Amino acid sequence: MAGYTGSKDEYLTRLRRVEGQVRGIARMVEDDEYCIDILTQVSAATKALQAVSLGLLEDHVGHCVVDAARTSDEAAAEKVAEAGAAIARLVRS
Amino acid sequence: MAGYTGSKDEYLTRLRRVEGQVRGIARMVEDDEYCIDILTQVSAATKALQAVSLGLLEDHVGHCVVDAARTSDEAAAEKVAEAGAAIARLVRS
Amino acid sequence: MAGYTGSKDEYLTRLRRVEGQVRGIARMVEDDEYCIDILTQVSAATKALQAVSLGLLEDHVGHCVVDAARTSDEAAAEKVAEAGAAIARLVRS
Amino acid sequence: MAGYTGSKDEYLTRLRRVEGQVRGIARMVEDDEYCIDILTQVSAATKALQAVSLGLLEDHVGHCVVDAARTSDEAAAEKVAEAGAAIARLVRS
Repeated sequence: MAGYTGSKDEYLTRLRRVEGQVRGIARMVEDDEYCIDILTQVSAATKALQAVSLGLLEDHVGHCVVDAARTSDEAAAEKVAEAGAAIARLVRS
Repeated sequence: MAGYTGSKDEYLTRLRRVEGQVRGIARMVEDDEYCIDILTQVSAATKALQAVSLGLLEDHVGHCVVDAARTSDEAAAEKVAEAGAAIARLVRS
Repeated sequence: MAGYTGSKDEYLTRLRRVEGQVRGIARMVEDDEYCIDILTQVSAATKALQAVSLGLLEDHVGHCVVDAARTSDEAAAEKVAEAGAAIARLVRS
Repeated sequence: MAGYTGSKDEYLTRLRRVEGQVRGIARMVEDDEYCIDILTQVSAATKALQAVSLGLLEDHVGHCVVDAARTSDEAAAEKVAEAGAAIARLVRS
């Protein structure tokens, strides 16, 4: 069981939507649509992906980090470092 | 003709790859894979989309803004404002 | 006591450095230096501030969230939601 | 003369404000204020710096790139590449 199991269907729906958005962007490029209109769609897809990341991160902290905190100091420290690295990757992406 | 026409195939290849990445992330969620591993893939897909945006923006400035600058001050001002708004959306996404 | 108390001096040193960077950027603007050179310095200062945020967030998760997890489910849920909102603000800033 | 010369005073005012924000954050750390409250202020300062970057970039495209476009293809290509690199640094910062 993963931290996000309770919201699995919601994540799948959101990811299917992002997949459709990216396919739509490819179609816009094929049709030589105006760069700025394409950029608007790419920004929307990027934002949707970041919302997925934010949700997964909060689920991770709320389940994996909290469970680890109740197990041991070592388990907590490991999960916290992992979460910190994931947040850094997200902020820099 | 759009600002990115010269690199159209490259953009299509990159967008197909992002589409595949997003589909792969959905599969990871379905298989209950570990949140942090999924987050790593979401960050990679987000980065790939941002690279597409950066390319499109540079193409836009290099073609649409440059052409407008050679047409008139009004045309230039319009394209510059549009590019500025697109950069802002990108930075905030 | 705050989550970052153990690294207080390090944060203060980093913040003094950012303050100096911002003052240096103002001087560059006063001296009409080249926009791109100024932009490079603004990006460096922005990155330094984000590194401070990432450190504070990891300290927060590692201390406040972990302590709350050991206190009660309610305390944990509250701290996790707060951390999630802070991560979202950081990603969007 | 730089691309931002017309708005120099406005940039200086904004940068002084960011400097004050960063000094205020250092004071909050000295006073052991709550991590989340500090994070909110760091995000605000980061956002203010990014707004400065976005303004400088738009000024750069609107003046330096437009002027270069009217000079020669080589001058335009150079300024466009420089702007593209600055946008990429901004998005990744």
